[in-house]
Amino acid sequence: MARKAAIIGGGVIGGGWAARFLLNGWDVAVFDPDPQAERKIGEVLANARAALPALSDVPMPAEGKLSFAGTITEAVEGAEYIQESVSERLELKHRVFAQIQQSAPETLIGSSTSGFKPSELQEHAANPGTIFVAHPFNPVYLLPLAEVVPSPKNAARDIERAKEILREIGMFPLHVRKEIDAHIADRFLEAVWREALWLVKDGVATTEEIDEAIRMGFGLRWGQMGLFETYRVAGGEAGMKHFMAQFGPCLQWPWTKLTDVPEFNDELVDLIAGQSDAQSGHHSIRELERIRDSNLIGFLRALKDRNWGAGKVLREHDARRAVAFHDAAPTGAPLVMAQMQVLPGWIDYNGHMTESRYLFAASETSDAFLRLIGAGMDYVAAGHSYYTAETHIMHLGECKLGDRLTGTLQVLGADEKRLHVFIRIQRGDEVVASLEQMLLHVDMKANKTCAAAPGVLAKLDPITQAHKALPRPEAAGRFVGQRRA
Amino acid sequence: MARKAAIIGGGVIGGGWAARFLLNGWDVAVFDPDPQAERKIGEVLANARAALPALSDVPMPAEGKLSFAGTITEAVEGAEYIQESVSERLELKHRVFAQIQQSAPETLIGSSTSGFKPSELQEHAANPGTIFVAHPFNPVYLLPLAEVVPSPKNAARDIERAKEILREIGMFPLHVRKEIDAHIADRFLEAVWREALWLVKDGVATTEEIDEAIRMGFGLRWGQMGLFETYRVAGGEAGMKHFMAQFGPCLQWPWTKLTDVPEFNDELVDLIAGQSDAQSGHHSIRELERIRDSNLIGFLRALKDRNWGAGKVLREHDARRAVAFHDAAPTGAPLVMAQMQVLPGWIDYNGHMTESRYLFAASETSDAFLRLIGAGMDYVAAGHSYYTAETHIMHLGECKLGDRLTGTLQVLGADEKRLHVFIRIQRGDEVVASLEQMLLHVDMKANKTCAAAPGVLAKLDPITQAHKALPRPEAAGRFVGQRRA
Repeated sequence: MARKAAIIGGGVIGGGWAARFLLNGWDVAVFDPDPQAERKIGEVLANARAALPALSDVPMPAEGKLSFAGTITEAVEGAEYIQESVSERLELKHRVFAQIQQSAPETLIGSSTSGFKPSELQEHAANPGTIFVAHPFNPVYLLPLAEVVPSPKNAARDIERAKEILREIGMFPLHVRKEIDAHIADRFLEAVWREALWLVKDGVATTEEIDEAIRMGFGLRWGQMGLFETYRVAGGEAGMKHFMAQFGPCLQWPWTKLTDVPEFNDELVDLIAGQSDAQSGHHSIRELERIRDSNLIGFLRALKDRNWGAGKVLREHDARRAVAFHDAAPTGAPLVMAQMQVLPGWIDYNGHMTESRYLFAASETSDAFLRLIGAGMDYVAAGHSYYTAETHIMHLGECKLGDRLTGTLQVLGADEKRLHVFIRIQRGDEVVASLEQMLLHVDMKANKTCAAAPGVLAKLDPITQAHKALPRPEAAGRFVGQRRA
Repeated sequence: MARKAAIIGGGVIGGGWAARFLLNGWDVAVFDPDPQAERKIGEVLANARAALPALSDVPMPAEGKLSFAGTITEAVEGAEYIQESVSERLELKHRVFAQIQQSAPETLIGSSTSGFKPSELQEHAANPGTIFVAHPFNPVYLLPLAEVVPSPKNAARDIERAKEILREIGMFPLHVRKEIDAHIADRFLEAVWREALWLVKDGVATTEEIDEAIRMGFGLRWGQMGLFETYRVAGGEAGMKHFMAQFGPCLQWPWTKLTDVPEFNDELVDLIAGQSDAQSGHHSIRELERIRDSNLIGFLRALKDRNWGAGKVLREHDARRAVAFHDAAPTGAPLVMAQMQVLPGWIDYNGHMTESRYLFAASETSDAFLRLIGAGMDYVAAGHSYYTAETHIMHLGECKLGDRLTGTLQVLGADEKRLHVFIRIQRGDEVVASLEQMLLHVDMKANKTCAAAPGVLAKLDPITQAHKALPRPEAAGRFVGQRRA
């Protein structure tokens, strides 16, 4: 039976939590008295369904069941984990916790609060030790960070259990060691926000210029190394001390004094809202969400390729879920090896997926297969590899932006040196392209074919045997221009 | 003759500027009295050569000539542009400008200063109007941002010329409209740095935890949208005003008061340097540089695929350098339709050109052919196109980074609706891959084949006739796995 999470408070944050749990196979019950909650959560979930699977290189589990509960009691019944994402009003949160603990006094309750300390949340609670901060970042279904902040009233064992649940849904729980207003990340966001308001108010820069100053420069650095590691590199061979000797004195410069809070009046709000409209108003919020998600997928994919930062979290999440998949006995069906999504960069001037991307999709599929049989990157690093000698492609359908594709692989034949495969790129059940390939196993240093390692052949052979039972694809053995049967 | 830039002050920043100019075809003369300057610039240049071309989809120009000058006078002689990157000491910068202007009083001088205002730089100068701020971000050869800050003494025409030069070397000049200490980006960096020092000093978080808080969450958002656009999306349908109504009041919360400057003493330096060693000390600085560059390439490539943010700058830079490639005159020889270079982004984990790039190279070749016969983008926009139905690829050789490739096309047969071609991807005379393709002419709206326009057929026919005299390629009509003759 699927595990159950209760989401108290819908909206963008609650919806993001719901999506993470659902897409990782948990059942989710949502409580939110807002009559719009179901629509709002549905929209977040639609975004998440289009985005999160694009980060996975192993098949996603079956999506959990989403339900909307009429009461908090109903929502939390049977839940293993509860996430609270109601408005940032302490007395409201206290009321919610009291209601939860009437029926589920022992269940872990993470709060999405960005400002309150766990000890504040725990005030007056029947069982304060189950309540802690689990502060996520929008979009919750893509960004891995969750700041986990306990107070001294939380047992270490409970916090470890909460962190484990967060890891299971693909997040990176950052254990914050001392409770403090705004935890860690929002302290930075707040410092930058205050500075940005001054710059706009004083006419130094518009909202657009500020965004460019961030995303054309240090924003790109921070997304992969953060602050200190970036500066460590900047310090060069002399290291961090050298960097600090250079940059430290800047703290005494006059601009560091400008830390008053600007008066937050209608004039400032109008100024900023007007500039933001001029900058981004030609995109709807839905469009901006899709653009943002697509960009984040690109960043996260790049980091995953490199096994670095947030990409490392994705790989670890895959590894958790891959065990069952890779250990499964080969069956008499083509192997589902890759899940992909047609990205904007894959589209040609016809508005369709550009033809080389079909071969790219097939490479993704065969690379995953080679990893499966133990001929992945480590094997290549040790000097051997399978090279493609020949490919025949049939273009059978047109893919468009956003299409979800599956790559399946059928072994047509194999010996010690040769691997003959048939790859189907599918949109649902429709095969949009089929690719027949002959791969040769090579000694990369000697640059000639040779027998694959025994361990690889031992994994390949049962699949080859199992696939002998499959019907031979009609397109196998075809030449270009041959009449169809 | 190549244009010349003078770089005054080597090191990481000066070296980065030198690399940008050199790799974009400019000659560069460096002046730096440091005996280590040549080695240091060489290291930055080696990093840049491995990284910058990975962002380009058009061949890079021939690299410019690098020289080291014994004097400032020698360095700036004949230079069209001068970039100053000496230490952040105002009197030193004043001395450098005075020396430059003795021999080159009219040449534009950009300063890499992160702190000084242009009016401060211009004090005592013989010709203040040529001096302005052009503040880059490390690594200068990858990050597009250059904050261009003039004072009222700079002529608008000169600043526009400077911005155009920066665009020519692939940068994004952000025109800062009011001079202010630390320009724009460094004000944010300073605010975050101050906050980070407090968090470490108070034991709330280590340097590693702070980096994770940034790169697992908002750092990823900022790299593609910056601050305001991110918040605009967070505000949802209700827009920026709604977001500000929610977030604005936070400014009154207690944590915003913590804006004093922490005492910058040895204890704090040791604490941070020690934590940074624990976090990143297992990587050398050279390794961290390569990791950083690889990550940034991944981010920038993702943004380029999506034509967004910094990726848009890359596309525009490509478009500037793309030389329309025309070759016509049907003769009794395959048509040379494309010239390409194997770029770092084309390389797979084997260290060879990844297989989908061979099909990409063939698409470049056939696209150029379609443009030649009048079936290019305008034709597609009007509703007709040639679609590839089928492809057979023979992989015959391995391409490596930097290889120059030629794509030739031979027409095997054609009628009103069908176009049967044979494409060779060559390195010099060696055919590294051959691709046989069947293309079908389609009415895109009706989504069915139809006869091509008379104008297209009139251009295609003489080529088809001329190519009938060519020997039929051995690989034409082959199926996958067929024994070679």
